Amino acid sequence: MIFSAASKNKGKDLSILIALGGNALNVDDTQGGISLKEEFFIARQAMKNIVDLVSDGYERIIITHGNGPQVGRIFLQQELTKEAFPRQTTLDVCVADTQGRIGYIIQNVFNNECRSRGLDKFAYSLITQVLVDVQDHAFNDPTKPIGAFYSEKEAAELSCKYGWVMKSQAKKGMRRVVPSPIPLDVIEKQMFKQMLASNMIAIVGGGGGIPVVRRESGELEGVEAVIDKDRTSALLANAVGIDVFIILTESDYVYLDYGKITEKKIENITVDELVKHHEQGQFPAGSMGPKVEAVISFIQGGGTHAIIASLFHLKEALAGKSGTHILKE
Amino acid sequence: MIFSAASKNKGKDLSILIALGGNALNVDDTQGGISLKEEFFIARQAMKNIVDLVSDGYERIIITHGNGPQVGRIFLQQELTKEAFPRQTTLDVCVADTQGRIGYIIQNVFNNECRSRGLDKFAYSLITQVLVDVQDHAFNDPTKPIGAFYSEKEAAELSCKYGWVMKSQAKKGMRRVVPSPIPLDVIEKQMFKQMLASNMIAIVGGGGGIPVVRRESGELEGVEAVIDKDRTSALLANAVGIDVFIILTESDYVYLDYGKITEKKIENITVDELVKHHEQGQFPAGSMGPKVEAVISFIQGGGTHAIIASLFHLKEALAGKSGTHILKE
Repeated sequence: MIFSAASKNKGKDLSILIALGGNALNVDDTQGGISLKEEFFIARQAMKNIVDLVSDGYERIIITHGNGPQVGRIFLQQELTKEAFPRQTTLDVCVADTQGRIGYIIQNVFNNECRSRGLDKFAYSLITQVLVDVQDHAFNDPTKPIGAFYSEKEAAELSCKYGWVMKSQAKKGMRRVVPSPIPLDVIEKQMFKQMLASNMIAIVGGGGGIPVVRRESGELEGVEAVIDKDRTSALLANAVGIDVFIILTESDYVYLDYGKITEKKIENITVDELVKHHEQGQFPAGSMGPKVEAVISFIQGGGTHAIIASLFHLKEALAGKSGTHILKE
Repeated sequence: MIFSAASKNKGKDLSILIALGGNALNVDDTQGGISLKEEFFIARQAMKNIVDLVSDGYERIIITHGNGPQVGRIFLQQELTKEAFPRQTTLDVCVADTQGRIGYIIQNVFNNECRSRGLDKFAYSLITQVLVDVQDHAFNDPTKPIGAFYSEKEAAELSCKYGWVMKSQAKKGMRRVVPSPIPLDVIEKQMFKQMLASNMIAIVGGGGGIPVVRRESGELEGVEAVIDKDRTSALLANAVGIDVFIILTESDYVYLDYGKITEKKIENITVDELVKHHEQGQFPAGSMGPKVEAVISFIQGGGTHAIIASLFHLKEALAGKSGTHILKE
């Protein structure tokens, strides 16, 4: 298999979308005594790796990011202050909060890292709405747990008061569950396309985007849901015509037979082969599954080159020396 | 005095910066039973007035907004959940949260209002950092109260734990006070300039911007402060070369001798006259003062036409039929 010939021809003009995990930016802030600026230190490590690419001459970059731990904290703080603020903030608004918060942190740290290397480059964070289908079956069967644990009685009250769907979580009690529908369109994509064309680095699609549905009137309305950030990233990558779509994880490669004696890392693979392995159950839903599905959707949606790699070997991955590369054929 | 001759020549090509108050978007959410979507209904009213301008052919618009009530709520929720989350989020991050939250609401509602009128126009919210001077005397004498009230003993503990400055608030107890330094530069201004040149509507500078200082290394670091949104709006208006700077308030005009029998509305005034009235104490710090200072700073910074007007008469104000118009000479 020839590695990324199409990509290589473009040289430094390649457009790149990098999807960062929310955990890569997270601090365990139930612990006291941690520096108030801890998120910035952690984000700096991540940004150093991305700025390495800018330093190498790549300027057409979009950064997306997760928000799992952060939206969890904000949502829990809403619940814990129910008495002072009986009108709970809806989840679409909580996602918007995290786009502001994480967007600021990444933007600030990215710019500082560029400046420290003498690069006159800025990143810009934009609020992103993502269309989902009000008929998506996820709305009938919410599965993503969020927030605090409650007794059955409390759960029934909350369900009545706020319309929350509550589900039993093993022996720990009841918890709110929210739907995770499939993203269909990125509302602000024209802007991101224009930024890419102007070599302006965009931080967008935070937390998978703010979920909105289109009402009969044609208007967009935020809904109580969360969207998988890798799926949204793939959709966005297709929408703006990205050359290389990179999902960063804690692992250097995707593996076959992960954790078994026959374990084998994947370096290069066609999308058809990857689909086959996925159908055989190689990639569990709780770990590599969603990432594998996102890269498949990117290639099937017209993309030519996707990479799943470690944040700490991003540069090597782009050079073809690390990570799992998924190609069209 | 000739009304806005310079502006009139540009016709619909005028660039306009509109500063919205945080109260214009606020819901009293200590009350239960209010719709979860209340903010969107309120923002829709505000956006109808702005979209009227778009409908009239004005496309070069920047919207800034306050965040007083919203950042107050977020900050208070941090305080009320100190036990679960002992690491309190710094105020710069809380401001970033509100830029995400309010930015989303305005962007969503603006786009819906445009769509309902058949206008193919989108607004984009961007995270905005604003430079302040670490030597600003406001840091030595914080005056802006924020968050919950405490006993003297609790206040002393919080001061020790988080470094907060606590001040007695009449008879209600002790409260955290934060500095409100003067804004010096808008970090992302190049982007906003480019958007204006491309007829793309930008929602920026939320809550006066995220306050950052420049460290000796040259890096920008967020600080615990809040910036007056009208001052930041004036600075931004100058930085991107805005033709008409409009501050929207609850009042149709600025008045001389406000509330007295000699009360008189101001329709047109030169900046020199306005400065004189301000020096004579006509505009109190708690109400019209900061807005008057912002328009003075805009005109003295090179602007030619500023308006202080009511949100509900924005169109008339731009047509010279309402509002207080401040001109260079």
